[in-house]
Amino acid sequence: MPLTAEQQAEIESQSNLQIPTKRPVSPGLEAMLFKALPVLDHGFVRVVDYMGDDSSIVQAARVSYGAGTKKVSEDRGLIRYLMRHHHTTPFEMCEIKYHVRLPIFVARQWIRHRTASVNEYSARYSIMDREFYIPEPEVLAAQSKINNQGRGDVLSSEQAAAVINLLKQDAQQCYDNYETMLNPAEEGGYGLARELARMNLTLNSYSQWYWKINLHNLFHFLQLRIDPHAQYEIRVYAEAMLKTLQAWVPIACEAFEDYRRGAVTFSASMMKVLGRMLNGEAIEQADSGLTKREWTEMMQMLAPYQQK
Amino acid sequence: MPLTAEQQAEIESQSNLQIPTKRPVSPGLEAMLFKALPVLDHGFVRVVDYMGDDSSIVQAARVSYGAGTKKVSEDRGLIRYLMRHHHTTPFEMCEIKYHVRLPIFVARQWIRHRTASVNEYSARYSIMDREFYIPEPEVLAAQSKINNQGRGDVLSSEQAAAVINLLKQDAQQCYDNYETMLNPAEEGGYGLARELARMNLTLNSYSQWYWKINLHNLFHFLQLRIDPHAQYEIRVYAEAMLKTLQAWVPIACEAFEDYRRGAVTFSASMMKVLGRMLNGEAIEQADSGLTKREWTEMMQMLAPYQQK
Amino acid sequence: MPLTAEQQAEIESQSNLQIPTKRPVSPGLEAMLFKALPVLDHGFVRVVDYMGDDSSIVQAARVSYGAGTKKVSEDRGLIRYLMRHHHTTPFEMCEIKYHVRLPIFVARQWIRHRTASVNEYSARYSIMDREFYIPEPEVLAAQSKINNQGRGDVLSSEQAAAVINLLKQDAQQCYDNYETMLNPAEEGGYGLARELARMNLTLNSYSQWYWKINLHNLFHFLQLRIDPHAQYEIRVYAEAMLKTLQAWVPIACEAFEDYRRGAVTFSASMMKVLGRMLNGEAIEQADSGLTKREWTEMMQMLAPYQQK
Amino acid sequence: MPLTAEQQAEIESQSNLQIPTKRPVSPGLEAMLFKALPVLDHGFVRVVDYMGDDSSIVQAARVSYGAGTKKVSEDRGLIRYLMRHHHTTPFEMCEIKYHVRLPIFVARQWIRHRTASVNEYSARYSIMDREFYIPEPEVLAAQSKINNQGRGDVLSSEQAAAVINLLKQDAQQCYDNYETMLNPAEEGGYGLARELARMNLTLNSYSQWYWKINLHNLFHFLQLRIDPHAQYEIRVYAEAMLKTLQAWVPIACEAFEDYRRGAVTFSASMMKVLGRMLNGEAIEQADSGLTKREWTEMMQMLAPYQQK
Repeated sequence: MPLTAEQQAEIESQSNLQIPTKRPVSPGLEAMLFKALPVLDHGFVRVVDYMGDDSSIVQAARVSYGAGTKKVSEDRGLIRYLMRHHHTTPFEMCEIKYHVRLPIFVARQWIRHRTASVNEYSARYSIMDREFYIPEPEVLAAQSKINNQGRGDVLSSEQAAAVINLLKQDAQQCYDNYETMLNPAEEGGYGLARELARMNLTLNSYSQWYWKINLHNLFHFLQLRIDPHAQYEIRVYAEAMLKTLQAWVPIACEAFEDYRRGAVTFSASMMKVLGRMLNGEAIEQADSGLTKREWTEMMQMLAPYQQK
Repeated sequence: MPLTAEQQAEIESQSNLQIPTKRPVSPGLEAMLFKALPVLDHGFVRVVDYMGDDSSIVQAARVSYGAGTKKVSEDRGLIRYLMRHHHTTPFEMCEIKYHVRLPIFVARQWIRHRTASVNEYSARYSIMDREFYIPEPEVLAAQSKINNQGRGDVLSSEQAAAVINLLKQDAQQCYDNYETMLNPAEEGGYGLARELARMNLTLNSYSQWYWKINLHNLFHFLQLRIDPHAQYEIRVYAEAMLKTLQAWVPIACEAFEDYRRGAVTFSASMMKVLGRMLNGEAIEQADSGLTKREWTEMMQMLAPYQQK
Repeated sequence: MPLTAEQQAEIESQSNLQIPTKRPVSPGLEAMLFKALPVLDHGFVRVVDYMGDDSSIVQAARVSYGAGTKKVSEDRGLIRYLMRHHHTTPFEMCEIKYHVRLPIFVARQWIRHRTASVNEYSARYSIMDREFYIPEPEVLAAQSKINNQGRGDVLSSEQAAAVINLLKQDAQQCYDNYETMLNPAEEGGYGLARELARMNLTLNSYSQWYWKINLHNLFHFLQLRIDPHAQYEIRVYAEAMLKTLQAWVPIACEAFEDYRRGAVTFSASMMKVLGRMLNGEAIEQADSGLTKREWTEMMQMLAPYQQK
Repeated sequence: MPLTAEQQAEIESQSNLQIPTKRPVSPGLEAMLFKALPVLDHGFVRVVDYMGDDSSIVQAARVSYGAGTKKVSEDRGLIRYLMRHHHTTPFEMCEIKYHVRLPIFVARQWIRHRTASVNEYSARYSIMDREFYIPEPEVLAAQSKINNQGRGDVLSSEQAAAVINLLKQDAQQCYDNYETMLNPAEEGGYGLARELARMNLTLNSYSQWYWKINLHNLFHFLQLRIDPHAQYEIRVYAEAMLKTLQAWVPIACEAFEDYRRGAVTFSASMMKVLGRMLNGEAIEQADSGLTKREWTEMMQMLAPYQQK
């Protein structure tokens, strides 16, 4: 259970507010507001604020004086058109803010997206929680033989147990010594500055932050991080966030699924091959003009759509 | 009057909504929401959405589970501390969205601030309004003799009238011909593409946009554009926006006034002079170690605070 | 001829320098350095500085201690892999700086790309050149009937002549009065501040700027602006810049052509249709699951690759 | 010694190149190019590329056709004027690229500056070096009593030795187990995916990256990180980079020292107190209108400049 009773009480008291506003309100997202969606063993994602909804996208695209919405079908058509043709600025008009708890090695990947605002819990100022990410056995996989930055087969249960044991033991020992460094002399410690002691923690220690981003940049983040090639430990955060988007901006989300997440891009060389295929030609890699790697990738892209 | 009856009706219908939300609500800003604050002769600024308030700044600074607020005096002290020490990220947690109508030459200065989201009315897609900025006689000033990018004395009333006459006549004639280019042949026009015809408009034509920015970046914008050295025509927009901030985030605004807008920065060389002055020394430019220009600037910086 | 003799002399003197450096040098781009590539009637693009070349991309991707290059074929394969899989950060390691002269209405489109550094010629500080963009008759097109933001058929030569006449006359008259406003009283003018007088200029007046951007963001700019749907007057600038890239980073450019400019993206719904087509099914719009608009777009995407 | 012989050889071979270019060349920075400036026990900073020099700042500010430089004294005056009045865009025209080796907890602070381009050594793709930051005894300080995010007195030599011992032992054990997790079964390991095993490393493990930034943003970084309140472990990197700037853009650097690093900013309330002091009034905190904290800060700001 990632939250203490005190934290739950804090969240509860905020959740009970109901104040009238003239701004766009998303009933779907209001229902999820402040609630922690659990991710990994001790992590979570929770929406703490938002601005705008699907109507804000059409309002901005039309630069209108009022709400700018027309019939639902016209609004949907406009949002899909904007998404399809990469008219991205109207999607920037929606904003969402999350509170996230996540392992530090995940935070290091995540922060590479530079278009968000971040306030991270400060280990210079505060003492870190005694909580570490320990993977479930079924996600402990061997190094992939074919992909230098991926995973292959799952470890045997003995191997997994041994790895989990090492991870637990090292994280705990490092944390114990972190505490010893921090503790005052009268408690057997060394009173070391927090900004120094923190360097003894392992990269699976949990941190947390407030993270705020506009919808356009969030879709870009999700497209990269929800991808099967993304590391599992960040993908599960992306999946949790996508659920919040489905509640918040369902039309934009549907367009995202169709024109981004489910879309397939063929290079100029691949398009030539595709044209020949559509003309009924049987093609082998050798006469395709593609490298072996590109050919394999193209076949993988087509596989889900072809007759078995 | 910058708004048509139809536009007013659109705004009214939006203003009458009152939907409950669990999010932070700013009563001061809700009262101003959607209302056009007039700026220049046909321009306006109006808030169309916002996210967060003063409490969101302290919530993010404390990375808290609930609202994160404590006693008002503590929150105020924290916000002032953050502003004073340039801990800027918590101010990024508030966001505001404006609908602005402004002359194109102002829009060109404004857009140089790259940290905002913008949707501008498209002159490729739509026909521009027949409205131009014509300055009041009292703001029509001569080129400054001492400042290459500033204004000097106000023109005489005859000069001002002549200039206003030229501005009006050229803007109207250009717009008339813009319309002629756009009109279909059967109406005596040429049916030219809108993306081409627009090039005939003058730079004082009004455009409009949705403009969304976080509070940190907005303070930076205001600090530069509310400055007496900023061009009058953008400064009046900055002043209108500052009023919306006073209603929205009064504590952060007060800190901004004290630590940014009203603050004075002395260079290392100026600090040496200041030290000597505080020690009772009488100093002339010649023995100050400052150039004449720096000396003049320093004296101007001190003048409002010294005995006459 | 866009450049004065004095400007040419300035450029010449800079072009004759030859100073040794340890940095990567691109012979192709050195040969173009400082030379103005003419664009439109009075505009130009010229490279004034650059940093890195194709080798800098592989060096960064490998985070290497030395140059990081291996065999040309391996480097090419790596660059193509990075481009194909949107590993964009290594492309940010190359930087290029242009000096551009362009009409103001083009500058207003251009500046919407926020990821560049810009220094524009200041009309608050200096007097604008007496130069305007007057389109060639063959680019003067009617408003498109099917695309709200595009062009249709070219105007007749009489219509074109009439439009050109209006554009010339209005631009010249506005500039004449701009000068009158600026001139001192003893020359029959009003001595108006430059920051005010400029508002009388038309949007086809030429401005100029220094514009600096990294290769990743430049590819993104080019992808959007070299597209047939981009306005002609900005597309010709994009085409001139692409030529400089071909001289500078030929391998990255080739990958850009294949994986971005020449690439085709199908939505999830389109992929289902494509799969059925590859399986030999004959499909009509009505049973495709696509809207008419999407169907038309898909047929246009496939047309260049299918047997007539 | 942070570099292997092989790495040194790679660097040497790059350093011996001397290719002519027409671009601005900084002799001072050429002499430092590629050389590793040691920082901390195993870290370094080395310049791997740059673009522009002091002359590029004035060239952009003047939007000139040629180099744009005039007399050295005029150029210096212009650069100082730009810095003093926060005309920041010309400083964006210079760019520099570093290769940095740094502990992960330092990298996490550093990356919060979002205006740079980064390529980090990938622990998903490669195996991390067996190197950790172990502080010197003289930088091991107790938690500050007065500053929640700072250091107080240095630990006793016994305390320091004990802390160093814990840091070494935990880092080594975690690295040993990291290797065990990575190693194949035939070598007694578990063949775990690199992207998983890395989570067992401690935060003082060294990583490395290519980091590229423009001069304006670098000055901003340095101003924050060279400050005495910045953590020592990042401050020493800032100091090493400042040395490279002094070799590269000496005039801009001098302006930075005077108008940024050595400058002092007084709030509006502090300015009132300063005015009274300049008028010869003796003031106590109680009648100053400042809080105790502000008063203390103001006295600290003035202390270096006042007679003892």
